[in-house]
Amino acid sequence: MINTLVKNIKEKNAPIVVGLDPMMSYIPKQITDKAFAEFGETLEGASNAIWEYNKKIIDATYDLIPAVKPQIAMYEQFGIEGLIAYKKTCDYAKSKGLVVIGDIKRGDIGSTSAAYAVAHLGKVAVGSNKIAAFNEDFVTVNPYLGSDGVNPFVDVCKEENKGIFVLVKTSNPSSGEFQDQLVNGRPLYELVAEKVVEWGNQCMGDTYSNVGCVVGATYPEMGKVLRKLMPNTYILVPGYGAQGGKGADLVHYFNEDGLGAIVNSSRGIIAAYKQEKYAKYGEACFEEASRQAVVDMLEDINQAIGRA
Amino acid sequence: MINTLVKNIKEKNAPIVVGLDPMMSYIPKQITDKAFAEFGETLEGASNAIWEYNKKIIDATYDLIPAVKPQIAMYEQFGIEGLIAYKKTCDYAKSKGLVVIGDIKRGDIGSTSAAYAVAHLGKVAVGSNKIAAFNEDFVTVNPYLGSDGVNPFVDVCKEENKGIFVLVKTSNPSSGEFQDQLVNGRPLYELVAEKVVEWGNQCMGDTYSNVGCVVGATYPEMGKVLRKLMPNTYILVPGYGAQGGKGADLVHYFNEDGLGAIVNSSRGIIAAYKQEKYAKYGEACFEEASRQAVVDMLEDINQAIGRA
Repeated sequence: MINTLVKNIKEKNAPIVVGLDPMMSYIPKQITDKAFAEFGETLEGASNAIWEYNKKIIDATYDLIPAVKPQIAMYEQFGIEGLIAYKKTCDYAKSKGLVVIGDIKRGDIGSTSAAYAVAHLGKVAVGSNKIAAFNEDFVTVNPYLGSDGVNPFVDVCKEENKGIFVLVKTSNPSSGEFQDQLVNGRPLYELVAEKVVEWGNQCMGDTYSNVGCVVGATYPEMGKVLRKLMPNTYILVPGYGAQGGKGADLVHYFNEDGLGAIVNSSRGIIAAYKQEKYAKYGEACFEEASRQAVVDMLEDINQAIGRA
Repeated sequence: MINTLVKNIKEKNAPIVVGLDPMMSYIPKQITDKAFAEFGETLEGASNAIWEYNKKIIDATYDLIPAVKPQIAMYEQFGIEGLIAYKKTCDYAKSKGLVVIGDIKRGDIGSTSAAYAVAHLGKVAVGSNKIAAFNEDFVTVNPYLGSDGVNPFVDVCKEENKGIFVLVKTSNPSSGEFQDQLVNGRPLYELVAEKVVEWGNQCMGDTYSNVGCVVGATYPEMGKVLRKLMPNTYILVPGYGAQGGKGADLVHYFNEDGLGAIVNSSRGIIAAYKQEKYAKYGEACFEEASRQAVVDMLEDINQAIGRA
């Protein structure tokens, strides 16, 4: 699957991913009004509004981008109905040729991680049938439980040609609380990075591994070190835009081939119409604002890494 | 919510929780046959089999136990249909007076953790309505992202009188890979434990905090140290039974008041009929085997901690 992601990135000259993390407050009034009129102010109403909103954003941007990254928590908060919108969003994005990175941050003991891996990347056995439940292309994985919590995901990646991104250094302000703690003089996230390389060696694509990692845009110095520590590991980079990361900060997340990193923006794209810069589009044309924000993000990043 | 859990534990003299982690291979043939006949070998068929299985186990054990702990991964692998069974199981257990500990091991950056907290412990805003989606009483939380990933859960616990159990030292064989790494001469899990105390101080019940922790039964020496480090923190203890933990190993997870820990058994209870010890019940009376396994587990643990 990493080969497909790299191919998409090259073809579109776009090392970016759009985070589909819908908040009700982002969704334009014309969409929520319609959904609430049909389904009421219910979980079903919210779910339908989210789905319509996502669909319009995908339709307006899919030709420019290689992938989307729906954040499952934003759907899970609307319960079963919300997860139906998550599934519809994943399926629709795939039908548009996009790689789907499910941002699920799951991770547990072995047998339980195996169930999560099956849920999101594999197929579950029911009687004599094998059925894919959510069927994303990649998912994010939390490494706190160690190798036997990650290996079941790697196993499914091998069987199904799927991929994962393991949290190494997250973008949030207090990520250092545990991740930066020094172990024999080196931060814990470097130990995790070394394990990511080990896990990834079992599951290589052509140049990069199907086991990638997550390193936040908000820690560029650490990104530079981690890039060197994991030369064949794709880095999923959250924290660009709304969280403070800029294109110029991201140069060292990439390898010299211009590959090796994929930068996520969520709010900055999907709620672009709320920014002064894109105010002219208004709520009515929110998806055109999203498209322009993708164009601008691409220019910012490609210029920084010398691909513009 | 910790007060309710403690009250249930005292009333039933039962510091245990039954893990509702259904695998298809555990479910007796009479149940899967019936579900597949009605719904086919589909996700819906699997989901219905799981629900019937859980319901019978709850009916056969609820008067003996204070709580159940459904592991959401085992449902998520069956997609939307599986999560419907999860929700039905949680609701049914609550209707029987049981405390429901959702073993979800979520955790993310602040705004995303807030969405998970709302999904599982709180209420989501839809227009002018506030709606509870999954509505467990407690959930488990992964601390790898640090305080700003945990605090949104603590905030919802305060608002809604709910609780969490934060992973400190997990029961799996490779949990030490990162959790045991020494930071200034002390294992990382002790640093996490100190943070658990800090988070918990914001959210106290009468004696214990609504912020509990997870420490595996498989590491009794560490459990002893952690017990002292977190005197007012309830410890959820997985790893008893099938994973190798025994009652005698668990003495030091409890405080002198005989409280402070709640021991989970999943397979050992729900698939008891598959053990030689309970073979006489057979598949047909699997729920009676589960009941007897609860009785035996209670005796083992209460004897070890001097409550028998």
